[in-house]
Amino acid sequence: MSSLLRQQRVHAVWWEDDGEGAAVCLLDQTQLPAEVVHLRLRHEQEVADAIRSLKVRGAPAIGATAAFGLCLALARLLREQGEGLTCAAAYAHFLKVAELMRGTRPTAVNLFWAIERMQRCAERLAKEEVAPSYLVQQLQAEAQAIVDEDAQACLRMGELGAELLQDGDHVLTHCNTGMLATMGWGTALAPLYIAHRQGKRIHVYVDETRPVLQGARLTAWELSQEGVPLTLITDNMAAYFMAQGNIKAVFVGADRVTANGDVANKIGTYGLAVLARAHQIPFYVAVPRSTIDLSLASGAHIPIEQRNPAEVTTIRGVSIAPAGVQVANPAFDVTPNHLITALITERGIAYPPFADSLRQICADD
Amino acid sequence: MSSLLRQQRVHAVWWEDDGEGAAVCLLDQTQLPAEVVHLRLRHEQEVADAIRSLKVRGAPAIGATAAFGLCLALARLLREQGEGLTCAAAYAHFLKVAELMRGTRPTAVNLFWAIERMQRCAERLAKEEVAPSYLVQQLQAEAQAIVDEDAQACLRMGELGAELLQDGDHVLTHCNTGMLATMGWGTALAPLYIAHRQGKRIHVYVDETRPVLQGARLTAWELSQEGVPLTLITDNMAAYFMAQGNIKAVFVGADRVTANGDVANKIGTYGLAVLARAHQIPFYVAVPRSTIDLSLASGAHIPIEQRNPAEVTTIRGVSIAPAGVQVANPAFDVTPNHLITALITERGIAYPPFADSLRQICADD
Repeated sequence: MSSLLRQQRVHAVWWEDDGEGAAVCLLDQTQLPAEVVHLRLRHEQEVADAIRSLKVRGAPAIGATAAFGLCLALARLLREQGEGLTCAAAYAHFLKVAELMRGTRPTAVNLFWAIERMQRCAERLAKEEVAPSYLVQQLQAEAQAIVDEDAQACLRMGELGAELLQDGDHVLTHCNTGMLATMGWGTALAPLYIAHRQGKRIHVYVDETRPVLQGARLTAWELSQEGVPLTLITDNMAAYFMAQGNIKAVFVGADRVTANGDVANKIGTYGLAVLARAHQIPFYVAVPRSTIDLSLASGAHIPIEQRNPAEVTTIRGVSIAPAGVQVANPAFDVTPNHLITALITERGIAYPPFADSLRQICADD
Repeated sequence: MSSLLRQQRVHAVWWEDDGEGAAVCLLDQTQLPAEVVHLRLRHEQEVADAIRSLKVRGAPAIGATAAFGLCLALARLLREQGEGLTCAAAYAHFLKVAELMRGTRPTAVNLFWAIERMQRCAERLAKEEVAPSYLVQQLQAEAQAIVDEDAQACLRMGELGAELLQDGDHVLTHCNTGMLATMGWGTALAPLYIAHRQGKRIHVYVDETRPVLQGARLTAWELSQEGVPLTLITDNMAAYFMAQGNIKAVFVGADRVTANGDVANKIGTYGLAVLARAHQIPFYVAVPRSTIDLSLASGAHIPIEQRNPAEVTTIRGVSIAPAGVQVANPAFDVTPNHLITALITERGIAYPPFADSLRQICADD
């Protein structure tokens, strides 16, 4: 199956060097599915704005994008200042951009994990007072390593998760956790893609995932690109199909998993987990190691991003609610560990009690 | 409190006679909340189309609209044919229009109940071979009685349901069950309006209710018209607010209640009932007698309307999903009786076992 590495048809973010210098390239996810628009970002501020405005989203993808953004910032500085740039000045700028990137989105831990990893690399080289061009080159290598490891992790989660699926299974998923959310096949969608490539006839019920419609706009689109059969539903139909016995398992991703196995993920995930339990349907969460945050004891400590009310009151620019209405817009919720059947990671499938199984999985660090 | 009868500021449907003859008048609910558009329908086909296209919706409101539509058909015929119209021809036309109205929407029983009631009236008069003008006049009186009784029932459900609410309560509701859905204060919204008028500080969490957004477009609008504080949320946020302890009760309406207390209502209701039970939150269903269908033993026998996929893939005309994607669009689901705390009717509050309590409530027929 390792031949499937890098075979996916869709890429969320990549690095390019052209005549005008370095660029962080994105598939603009706010334009999907109507248009496939590629963006070439030349400045770190544009990268931060792209993360904040959801042009790129998905926990692993925003980690990789931030890493590329840090490289871009120093490559730009080096290009502009040339030989005048000192290693100390480059590192000082790195720290400023790291703060900019950290301020984009609060919930997904991969962002902080990737920035931290880049910063350890930069700090070590800054202490050695290396040439700025070498600093940039090494940071690019580190960012690429983050990307490559994520692609590998996706494939492995896919292989492990596919073993949980039988030929003919109908499964439910929420939000987008595939090629658009990661550097590879995805987290929760990877098992579905791999099972499909293995010839298992999988059918995916796709929650549209209000308010930002990542399911309708992104998951339905990328499953179609790969030819995986799907049925798009509104979020409030999930219970109906569960009750009909159509759903064999729920597969979701996560933005942060705490030491006890609590899971922060897209708003609506917690409700699905309660419904899955009530219908005795397995509830699987697929996450790479980089999404597991052992520094937090439980989900109660995860900061939940509150986003703009306009995401609820307008859809693709069209108003759907009375002007001035009060709105709540928590972007994530926390699913307690007792509702989770298993966590699928690239290092193996973790079963309850998660405090133990996650500690073992992370012991290889 | 009976001074509150007919004090509501919003009316879904009413009858008018002007220089051009009779008209069924509607507040076009597909245009809300952007515009308040009143329609004057002159032909029964327009009335049927308005019901089918959701210009008017809500179980009691479509029952009353169909009754008005039957009157309109005969008033139009009488106006066109004058003295040439026989009672037998008028009754034959009535039966044709009754079939037209029955074919508009399958799930809400009030539609069939109202048509049946009108038909009993028409049949009796047809047997007596009354003058067609008298037939029309009597049918108008019967339709008006349906309207008046519904307004009374709403007020009574409101008074009874308001007793279940404390000052300061936050409650959750789904779809639209208020002034736009009935001939009075509503079913599930009536208790909230009455409690608010009684000076209780009620706060309503309003599910937007995809796909047709009756919550965001209609409930948020009409609660605002009455000054009731609300927070609009997407359907998938309900579990989040339940887990936070913010929700003291769930109030919903119904399109049909069967003899055992199973409830067909807007898609998403069943999921909310499962979530409410998991969080030990009371789940109340408010229905007039006309929504209770003792002829069906359980919810398994209720026909569930499957609506146009475009309701899911487009919002207010804007596409939100890939072209040609497979979609499911069941408009209703069935909540089994064991998840329901009580049924609020104009004849009293029914508690489990509902087979007994509903039989008692309907014994007065």
